[in-house]
Amino acid sequence: MVDSGANVRTRLAAAVGAANVLTESPDVEPYVTDWRGRFHGRTLAVVRPANTAEVADVVRICNEARVPIVAQGGNTGMCGAATPDAMGYEVVLSLTRLDRIRAVDGDNATITVEAGVPLAQVQQAAADAGFHFPLSLASEGSCTIGGNLSTNAGGTAVLRFGNARDLALGLEVVLADGRVWNGLRGLRKDNTGYDLKQLFIGAEGTLGIITAAVLKLFPKPVASVTALAALADPAGAVALLRTLKRGLSDRLVGFELISAPALAICRKHHPDLPDPVPGHPWYALVQIDDSGSASALSEQVENAFADAVESATALDVAIAQSEEQAHALWALRENISESQRREGPNIKHDISLPVSAIPEFLETSHDALSAAFPGAQFVIFGHLGDGNLHYNLAAPTGADAHAFMEHAPRANRIVHDLVAARGGSISAEHGIGQLKREELARYKAPVELEMMRAIKAALDPAGLLNPGKVL
Amino acid sequence: MVDSGANVRTRLAAAVGAANVLTESPDVEPYVTDWRGRFHGRTLAVVRPANTAEVADVVRICNEARVPIVAQGGNTGMCGAATPDAMGYEVVLSLTRLDRIRAVDGDNATITVEAGVPLAQVQQAAADAGFHFPLSLASEGSCTIGGNLSTNAGGTAVLRFGNARDLALGLEVVLADGRVWNGLRGLRKDNTGYDLKQLFIGAEGTLGIITAAVLKLFPKPVASVTALAALADPAGAVALLRTLKRGLSDRLVGFELISAPALAICRKHHPDLPDPVPGHPWYALVQIDDSGSASALSEQVENAFADAVESATALDVAIAQSEEQAHALWALRENISESQRREGPNIKHDISLPVSAIPEFLETSHDALSAAFPGAQFVIFGHLGDGNLHYNLAAPTGADAHAFMEHAPRANRIVHDLVAARGGSISAEHGIGQLKREELARYKAPVELEMMRAIKAALDPAGLLNPGKVL
Repeated sequence: MVDSGANVRTRLAAAVGAANVLTESPDVEPYVTDWRGRFHGRTLAVVRPANTAEVADVVRICNEARVPIVAQGGNTGMCGAATPDAMGYEVVLSLTRLDRIRAVDGDNATITVEAGVPLAQVQQAAADAGFHFPLSLASEGSCTIGGNLSTNAGGTAVLRFGNARDLALGLEVVLADGRVWNGLRGLRKDNTGYDLKQLFIGAEGTLGIITAAVLKLFPKPVASVTALAALADPAGAVALLRTLKRGLSDRLVGFELISAPALAICRKHHPDLPDPVPGHPWYALVQIDDSGSASALSEQVENAFADAVESATALDVAIAQSEEQAHALWALRENISESQRREGPNIKHDISLPVSAIPEFLETSHDALSAAFPGAQFVIFGHLGDGNLHYNLAAPTGADAHAFMEHAPRANRIVHDLVAARGGSISAEHGIGQLKREELARYKAPVELEMMRAIKAALDPAGLLNPGKVL
Repeated sequence: MVDSGANVRTRLAAAVGAANVLTESPDVEPYVTDWRGRFHGRTLAVVRPANTAEVADVVRICNEARVPIVAQGGNTGMCGAATPDAMGYEVVLSLTRLDRIRAVDGDNATITVEAGVPLAQVQQAAADAGFHFPLSLASEGSCTIGGNLSTNAGGTAVLRFGNARDLALGLEVVLADGRVWNGLRGLRKDNTGYDLKQLFIGAEGTLGIITAAVLKLFPKPVASVTALAALADPAGAVALLRTLKRGLSDRLVGFELISAPALAICRKHHPDLPDPVPGHPWYALVQIDDSGSASALSEQVENAFADAVESATALDVAIAQSEEQAHALWALRENISESQRREGPNIKHDISLPVSAIPEFLETSHDALSAAFPGAQFVIFGHLGDGNLHYNLAAPTGADAHAFMEHAPRANRIVHDLVAARGGSISAEHGIGQLKREELARYKAPVELEMMRAIKAALDPAGLLNPGKVL
């Protein structure tokens, strides 16, 4: 029997306290709209449990009443995974009150945190203990670590440290029926059966609710170099990446590709930012960190770039001479999205490819899109070191930017077909949510979709965890 | 209807050629006994397909006839996962003929290999292309990469490079019904649904048959230092690990703990090996590599160890001055198992713990086991950097070593209870197979076992993939 909404609300209030069950319109509003304002939903209630036991109670109540659950962290997702649907039958389970750092283990180099801790606070707690937690994203002040794990967040240090998945050693998860799985292990080696935590990471709340995690910590960087290299073309970027990997190995932490138009838009809206190697078609912003003491980093970096310039892999290089200069170079990269938004809407893609396939892909896709949308502007940047491009298309100069957005489905088809044909991914770091669900169904092989559905049915047989997302 | 064995053999011969279906006793023998000689089975047939399509045919035939399949690589596993049971109804599916290096992609830093390629050949192919493939194990000449992935192999470079799992970007898998899942992606970022490859890695052939993989490649080390540090106790080892991580960061590749008795047994059987810092109760063998050019490694290592000796974290340190000396130091570690075998059988444990928990665990377990088995000899060594110990117990001097083995169940109970109470693992890198299946059932929480069984039922509903292993 399906329970009535009022009855469910009463039971939820008994579980977490009436003050933590929001049902009125102004209270609920921030939880039912995604931050980009693309998705709007309604909800039976927003429930804010304080700890794992309360999360388990909430899930058990919802399971018994057959009420679907949308888990939500900082609500900073890009694909609407944390926004309920329009029917108003779903409960939003906000994890932001699970905000404790449970433990820091220096000898084990791990930190145990609850799902609702903002990423920046995880970083800070690590720093306070003398360590480095390398996950870093634009939204780190407001996104939560539970959301980062549930979406397998990427960011700017994946080249060296991997995605959120690679930073997690253990998880605590509330399962679809309200049972708690304590997988909070701080082990670097554990081969006792299937690695279940991997299923919940990146599942966007469709298989279970992550309530806590054991994360890896790293030594703090003691030396850093930031540089902007000018390049003739994307092939030059790939060659420079390879040269720097060979010369700097693990010290190469970030390698961001920026096209001249992307840089120009950023500098248009931020004219105080530097333009140290002007007049080239492509750039690479490179971050190099060293955590070892007595580091010879500056010399190594200078040698590596000297090799690159000598072999004409790089046309010119500016190396930041101070922390201020380093921040300014990074601001050139970090302000692209926001500058682009000021120019008007644009058709966005978050794609990845084998690094080796990127130059040819960029050429082919440029030709195909230029033929389909004459005069369209390309704003291309992203984490080339990870094969991840933010590949954006804007209206031709003078054209109506909003009207241009109607071309999105056709542009998506061209881009995603070319990506798929090269073994790439239509969602490198943003996930699927509700935004790309149809694209996923289109591009995944039937056998893979079937396996995913079998896993979903195995762990959430009633289909109550974030229905309509991912699958 | 269950097909007759003869009929199945005929169909298998049609699929892979009669020469590749072994049924006679001497041919079959090497495939039905594990290399340590602990497990002996019988088989309907040993089938040796040549490629993925043939593997799919074999699995389809077995699925239709309801014949169980035991996948096997180099047959070097430690827990009997690749040995069929005694009934003789199971087919052994040998992957050793899938032995092609399919591709090396230098710009993407990946290699695509088939499951049957021996690990040493993967390393060699990487080296030939100017790269480093860091997975390294004692059995690397004969174990296969498919087996390494299926058991999530560890080894001596996990501290820096992770387990086999961390080195895989994509897999090709034949599913229980004979369909092929092509997940051979060479992507560093891909968030399009559940990360299915993670399920097959470490599943010991119970969820699917891995036929190929895309693996990560790394820059070759250009500078290396090997050192043997003498320590007062395991707490000193943990402190030294922390000091070296801070001073050397990623350059710290291996950190092996060796107890004085383990070293003594090794030197007894290999008297030519060095004893450069004699007379201490514990040792750490440390490997430090640098892949960056213009490396300041020697200076950094000397500084780091000078700090350690000054703070009395290390009592004494010998740094290898040549490649020969480095090999000799490593031989002290690598020959422990074999030297121990010459001394007679011993009760072995492959455990892991949070690194911080190891000193107290070693004290507590020593007391508990000494009380239970007065005079028992402890031979302790392992990958301390990963929290992984090979914790072995031998008969008291003069006692009957074979008779002592009867204590194994009681010793296991003491060791595993103490490990479990500290959040550790009863199988750090060797897996479960048939050897530790009952221990797994004992120590895993029911909720976790239930999830594993649900996953197993979802991907192998007829239960034909390696039954009786792991779960």
